[in-house]
Amino acid sequence: MTSIPVRRALLSVSDKTGIVDLATALSGKGVELVSTGGTAKALRDAGLTVRDISELTGFPEMMDGRVKTLHPKVHGGLLAVRDDAAHAASMAEHQIGAIDLVVVNLYPFEATVAKGADRDEVVENIDIGGPSMVRSAAKNHAYVAIVTDPADYALVAEGTTTLNDRKRLAAKAFATTAAYDGAIARWFGQVDQGERFPATLPITLRRAGEELRYGENPHQHAAFYAATGDATPGIGQARQVQGKALSYNNYNDADAALELIAEFRDADPTCVIVKHANPCGVATAATLAEAYEAAFACDTVSAFGGIIAVNRPLDGVTAKAITGIFTEVVVAPDADAEALALFAAKKNLRLLLTGALPDPARDGLFAKSIAGGWLVQSRDAGRVLPADLKVVTKRQPTEQELADCLFAWTIAKHVKSNAIVYAKGGSTAGVGAGQMNRLESARIAAWKAKDAADKAGWGEPRTIGSAVASDAFFPFADGLLAAVEAGATAVIQPGGSIRDDEVIAAADAAGLAMVFTGMRHFRH
Amino acid sequence: MTSIPVRRALLSVSDKTGIVDLATALSGKGVELVSTGGTAKALRDAGLTVRDISELTGFPEMMDGRVKTLHPKVHGGLLAVRDDAAHAASMAEHQIGAIDLVVVNLYPFEATVAKGADRDEVVENIDIGGPSMVRSAAKNHAYVAIVTDPADYALVAEGTTTLNDRKRLAAKAFATTAAYDGAIARWFGQVDQGERFPATLPITLRRAGEELRYGENPHQHAAFYAATGDATPGIGQARQVQGKALSYNNYNDADAALELIAEFRDADPTCVIVKHANPCGVATAATLAEAYEAAFACDTVSAFGGIIAVNRPLDGVTAKAITGIFTEVVVAPDADAEALALFAAKKNLRLLLTGALPDPARDGLFAKSIAGGWLVQSRDAGRVLPADLKVVTKRQPTEQELADCLFAWTIAKHVKSNAIVYAKGGSTAGVGAGQMNRLESARIAAWKAKDAADKAGWGEPRTIGSAVASDAFFPFADGLLAAVEAGATAVIQPGGSIRDDEVIAAADAAGLAMVFTGMRHFRH
Repeated sequence: MTSIPVRRALLSVSDKTGIVDLATALSGKGVELVSTGGTAKALRDAGLTVRDISELTGFPEMMDGRVKTLHPKVHGGLLAVRDDAAHAASMAEHQIGAIDLVVVNLYPFEATVAKGADRDEVVENIDIGGPSMVRSAAKNHAYVAIVTDPADYALVAEGTTTLNDRKRLAAKAFATTAAYDGAIARWFGQVDQGERFPATLPITLRRAGEELRYGENPHQHAAFYAATGDATPGIGQARQVQGKALSYNNYNDADAALELIAEFRDADPTCVIVKHANPCGVATAATLAEAYEAAFACDTVSAFGGIIAVNRPLDGVTAKAITGIFTEVVVAPDADAEALALFAAKKNLRLLLTGALPDPARDGLFAKSIAGGWLVQSRDAGRVLPADLKVVTKRQPTEQELADCLFAWTIAKHVKSNAIVYAKGGSTAGVGAGQMNRLESARIAAWKAKDAADKAGWGEPRTIGSAVASDAFFPFADGLLAAVEAGATAVIQPGGSIRDDEVIAAADAAGLAMVFTGMRHFRH
Repeated sequence: MTSIPVRRALLSVSDKTGIVDLATALSGKGVELVSTGGTAKALRDAGLTVRDISELTGFPEMMDGRVKTLHPKVHGGLLAVRDDAAHAASMAEHQIGAIDLVVVNLYPFEATVAKGADRDEVVENIDIGGPSMVRSAAKNHAYVAIVTDPADYALVAEGTTTLNDRKRLAAKAFATTAAYDGAIARWFGQVDQGERFPATLPITLRRAGEELRYGENPHQHAAFYAATGDATPGIGQARQVQGKALSYNNYNDADAALELIAEFRDADPTCVIVKHANPCGVATAATLAEAYEAAFACDTVSAFGGIIAVNRPLDGVTAKAITGIFTEVVVAPDADAEALALFAAKKNLRLLLTGALPDPARDGLFAKSIAGGWLVQSRDAGRVLPADLKVVTKRQPTEQELADCLFAWTIAKHVKSNAIVYAKGGSTAGVGAGQMNRLESARIAAWKAKDAADKAGWGEPRTIGSAVASDAFFPFADGLLAAVEAGATAVIQPGGSIRDDEVIAAADAAGLAMVFTGMRHFRH
């Protein structure tokens, strides 16, 4: 093993966690400590002997600390190839001492931004000397160990370092400087440029926890990463009260459920059931338990092994109903003691408490990788209010039809395209998802409503007298006619087809009320 | 406007493009030029007067160029707050001259890696001094302009700079250093650690072209970014021969079509038709034209406005058939003169020529953002070979059934889950996509096959005597029984349900041949 003794260490940290212990350990091994400003003071306060960097450089710290370590005597000591004769000669000539260990962590730029600092303060907190030392040491990892994280202090506290550790630390060091400059670039882009899509977009992902058991399928590997500089609370930030670790598909489905329930965060008690990232039942009712029962009744087959999200703290009655069948994940803002006790009896069920629900209208970017690149877009924060609607039929919708239209529309936004959703009385009647043509989605949704009615013994499907939402315009009248056949009396859709006249005429002929939203909600 | 005259410029570039012209212009405005090594030589060769950086620092370049600009006289000149009395005093005391413009571009690290340099050469090419100057100048953008891209030379060639430009250049500078260190971190991670999911994952996206017209929906903004350090040819790298600019949904659908057709890159002529990121028809035949006709016949309704991908250069006969209906995008390795002429008559049709198709079994990561984080997984490179199959029924599949099974399986991998695909004689008979339960997908696919048969006047649907593929196991026998009812005689599925015995018994009772793949292909 290429184990190297540390003779001189340069310590300069913003986060002082564990630094005195590390310095004490190194000092005990005879390591000379070189330091700056606050770090030097902390070490001296602990009774350690520390050499000032300005003594090493023979150059005073100046310009309010902007320039203190950017000096050949520091960087020569970091970058010299120790067994190169010419380098050694340069060291001798300029009295440069080798530095074998660098412990640096950077001023938390993102925290400065997050706390609302003004522009000048943010800029002043861009660390220049720190990243330079980190990079010099990391480049010269053949000889120098670079520690940027207090969690790695134990690796070097014995006063020797191995090549494997130095390589690992160098990788981490460059990831750290990349993340640091990425955050600065994003801040500049937002503050000064208002750039949504800069020419170069640096993104830093930080793994949250260990690798997942597997990806979308068992032969794929996967991990969940937290978004740096994004304070949106999501599934990864929720508190998991119980249950098995979340799988990749759990994350994906639970995210879909969370985004949909968030649309109802200011609504009456609402329950969403998701399967394969599509809602199979959604309902709003007087109580959460009633909302769950109504959502479940919409598609009792698909609900098996589903993901449930609610917009209210879970109570015992609702928990009892949910635990009546096999459920993968339950997402809620909170849960009362009775609910927690009931869930505790189902050890495998994953219960996630999110606290507040995210704002469905928030800004943000959505990105996904495709072969050779990335598709990046602003998230679909679009919402339709009653005032946005344009009635295009002779008949105006009734108040109940209007409410059902808006309810169905909100859900259609979260159903994979082509999406058709029937709703009645605050409950989905049928969900037609993911079809390659719109007519099929309309027919599938109606067919499912009939299945549900047969299973529940309702006599007639809930599509009778329902409102139907289409996530994009009907290109022909056929999809609308399928909805009429299923019993819909009101329609909500974007409008905008070159055959709108034909579609409106068909709606009028059938006595429907139809509203246009002027907004589309494709989702793939 | 805060326009500042440039009195001293520091030029140090790896890419010499345009540098002599810029320096000549600056010199003409009376700007003092300071430079290093190769850049200084290039400028002197052009007859310009240049001051060496070592003259400015009073310190020689040393250690094979590892240390030349890391000096207080350089960084003091970059970082000094000009109207701060104490900073000015430090400048006077240490004879530090202000530098108003920095032109630096970094050694192309990724190109060094890409050309197959050995570890030592790659490490030697990690630029230390360059990024330090870039960062100092960018931090002090109130006074200093930092130019990292020859495309921005025109902004500063007049010898004055504005605050707005300096801010924009600073943002770009930090994006550049972030990208640079990100590439280094990824290289370290791959070379030394073999880490699939490092704790910190820096990703740099580079926008390819302008913003897209809009995102998945008109109220969303979007852009396509090329993946840095990923040589996979995708839709973004294809040559667009004609047609309107690609939309967000075009990229998404065309990527789905490309990934699916790539599975057939070594197969007989094959055609794929995609709508809403799902295949609505796929066929392999003796000629491309026949393959297109068979794929189209599978679902003539959905094919309208679809995305077509083929695995052979397009010929005139096929082009004529494709242009018979409205098609959004055609993706092909190449096209002959006759095909090109036929497409040219349809000006809006987007024709993309990809050259070779990507390797469907290649490694790579897939990532997508969710609320508060990112899901990252290795792409689904899984493939099933005949030797992997396990016959679980009493009856063995015939040779034709086995071929149909594998064909249907390959397509099911690319259909959104739950996916059921019927295929017969190298052509899809029905595609059941995106349903929340498997039984529904089986029924939908059969229903679509019947529709297609009715439209084509085939007498009976192609599901009669077909093979059926299920992307995940049948949890109950009901989905399988729906396939039997549709006329399937062979089944391919992963197996692994706790009710496999029940499902196998149902298959045996119906005289089916069924094979297990041991591999699942969820896709959401």
